[in-house]
Amino acid sequence: MDLAALTHPIVQAPLAGGPSTPELAVAVSEAGGLGFLAAGYRSADDLRADIAAVRSRTAAPFGVNLFVPSAGQVDRAAVDAYAARLRAEAERHGVELGAPADDDDAWQAKLAVVTEERVPLVSFTFGLPAREVIEQVRAAGASVAVTVTTPDEAVAAHAAGADILVAQGIEAGGHRGGFTDDAGDYGLLTLLRLVLRATPLPVVAAGGIADGAGVAAVLVAGAVAAQLGTAFLRCPEAGTSAAHREALGSYDRTAVTRAFTGRRARGLVNRFLREHSEEAPAAYPQVHHLTAPLRAAGRKAGDASVVNLWAGQAHRLAEEVPAGELVRRLAAEARESLERATHHPNTPA
Amino acid sequence: MDLAALTHPIVQAPLAGGPSTPELAVAVSEAGGLGFLAAGYRSADDLRADIAAVRSRTAAPFGVNLFVPSAGQVDRAAVDAYAARLRAEAERHGVELGAPADDDDAWQAKLAVVTEERVPLVSFTFGLPAREVIEQVRAAGASVAVTVTTPDEAVAAHAAGADILVAQGIEAGGHRGGFTDDAGDYGLLTLLRLVLRATPLPVVAAGGIADGAGVAAVLVAGAVAAQLGTAFLRCPEAGTSAAHREALGSYDRTAVTRAFTGRRARGLVNRFLREHSEEAPAAYPQVHHLTAPLRAAGRKAGDASVVNLWAGQAHRLAEEVPAGELVRRLAAEARESLERATHHPNTPA
Repeated sequence: MDLAALTHPIVQAPLAGGPSTPELAVAVSEAGGLGFLAAGYRSADDLRADIAAVRSRTAAPFGVNLFVPSAGQVDRAAVDAYAARLRAEAERHGVELGAPADDDDAWQAKLAVVTEERVPLVSFTFGLPAREVIEQVRAAGASVAVTVTTPDEAVAAHAAGADILVAQGIEAGGHRGGFTDDAGDYGLLTLLRLVLRATPLPVVAAGGIADGAGVAAVLVAGAVAAQLGTAFLRCPEAGTSAAHREALGSYDRTAVTRAFTGRRARGLVNRFLREHSEEAPAAYPQVHHLTAPLRAAGRKAGDASVVNLWAGQAHRLAEEVPAGELVRRLAAEARESLERATHHPNTPA
Repeated sequence: MDLAALTHPIVQAPLAGGPSTPELAVAVSEAGGLGFLAAGYRSADDLRADIAAVRSRTAAPFGVNLFVPSAGQVDRAAVDAYAARLRAEAERHGVELGAPADDDDAWQAKLAVVTEERVPLVSFTFGLPAREVIEQVRAAGASVAVTVTTPDEAVAAHAAGADILVAQGIEAGGHRGGFTDDAGDYGLLTLLRLVLRATPLPVVAAGGIADGAGVAAVLVAGAVAAQLGTAFLRCPEAGTSAAHREALGSYDRTAVTRAFTGRRARGLVNRFLREHSEEAPAAYPQVHHLTAPLRAAGRKAGDASVVNLWAGQAHRLAEEVPAGELVRRLAAEARESLERATHHPNTPA
């Protein structure tokens, strides 16, 4: 699909782990943006049902995001040590820690789903799929997007056959989407400029954008569209937990941490993040599984101190507003920002 | 002074520690941007001479940047331990480490210079000057700019009477300019949007901007001008050392480190940065003085492995081009980027 043909150049970030719902994707796509479903942490059957739910309510295009399985070796002793450290947390919340299993998040089954369902746009996060996978997905009619956090990743994704790049700046909430756990920490605007010079592909700009002026800025810098995640978390259509919604409006700082999942992700700085970030190993998805019962208990009890409160650096700008209205508002604000800059007294002339 | 009245909305970053020269400031100001002199590490007399040198060659406005003295206590034992660690480095390069002295970089004397000389724009880095200092400088006819790295710093600077804010994103090369060593790590675009919502002041956007599309992007996001530093480092008018110039074109990654000065700064990842970042204490200017002879020896010998190679994340875009030509080119590219976005098929409509 041609992102330049969207009514509004606004893409909803996938938001795996709860916030992603068919309702949210439908609202964004119906408003003229591009809605997204997160395949991450869903079963293949649930993903298929989500896709059907979107299609039952809109004929507009949408995207599905898949997590690429990690290739690296994990230090099992480090995971065990971290588990020992978290035992007191588990007792305090009356749960058992999860088994720190390895798994591929049903990679093959979900690839089959997006292929069979002929999803318009399939994006990948956490790694570069093999060229054959990219070709298989595209043969089913999808455009293929790859998340990158460095110019080198962009070059590799282009070489592997990607149609679109999602350039994720360090401002972004949730997981770092690069090929390795310690991949790029570029600010979005710089990353965007470097990636656009490194490949000829259309680039979606992601990370810390939460208003129309931010959307306009990345378009001027050459992006084909802006991707927003945190800005949609408080929409009524999102599946964001109550604890997470409330924290978005009241917490101040964010930080990048491995404490919750064993993979770097940006979240609001709560007690769990403060106390465990330094000791958390690079071990995804083992740590994700380990902490899952804790996080679920926190969400259930409304105790945000132990929940992964993913949020980008612009989280203060997230508003409680219907997603379709947000898309239209962002587009109108972006237009105003462009016009204002064009008529500014010292606009380059 | 009114930054919106500049012919081109382009400000040269101060570039303390060598690259700053009167010639560079003159070239930028004469081309219609705003040139800057770095007062940092200069004597008050040298600063006065630099100001005279600029004035002898241009009637255009320019700025002077001052380092605000640190208020915090330094862990002397940590400095001693770091010095012990660096002794082998010093021996290898045939120098003695410097005395890890505390000093205020001739704060009062330089304040007197910028006041007496009636410099058009005075900017402050590393802290918020007292309200009386800001009033004293403004009473001498200067506009007062304060460097901020968080929305909270912006609010405090506004409350203290600043006329202009310089919002420095995490992409920026050289020292983090916030009020404390561990201040903000916001990406520029997000920081700019948050600061513009937090205060009514005009904001100069700094960090990782190195081409006209980047300039246009921050103008659209609401900045009154873009500040570029690394982009000017390879200009013939800059005092950048040969080792630093060459490294800008050949090194790949940057990182934020305290290894060279005891205060967080972004530089190209060389051997010294890799080997010592983890152990370097937060102790500025003690560590700056400690490593000064080492760095000087590296510059003299053309050995970049031990030099502080300050560089922003967009350093790959820095070109060897006269500064005036660079200013005009940036302005022309910025105009093209604005026009392209305005006529883009899915520009918000």
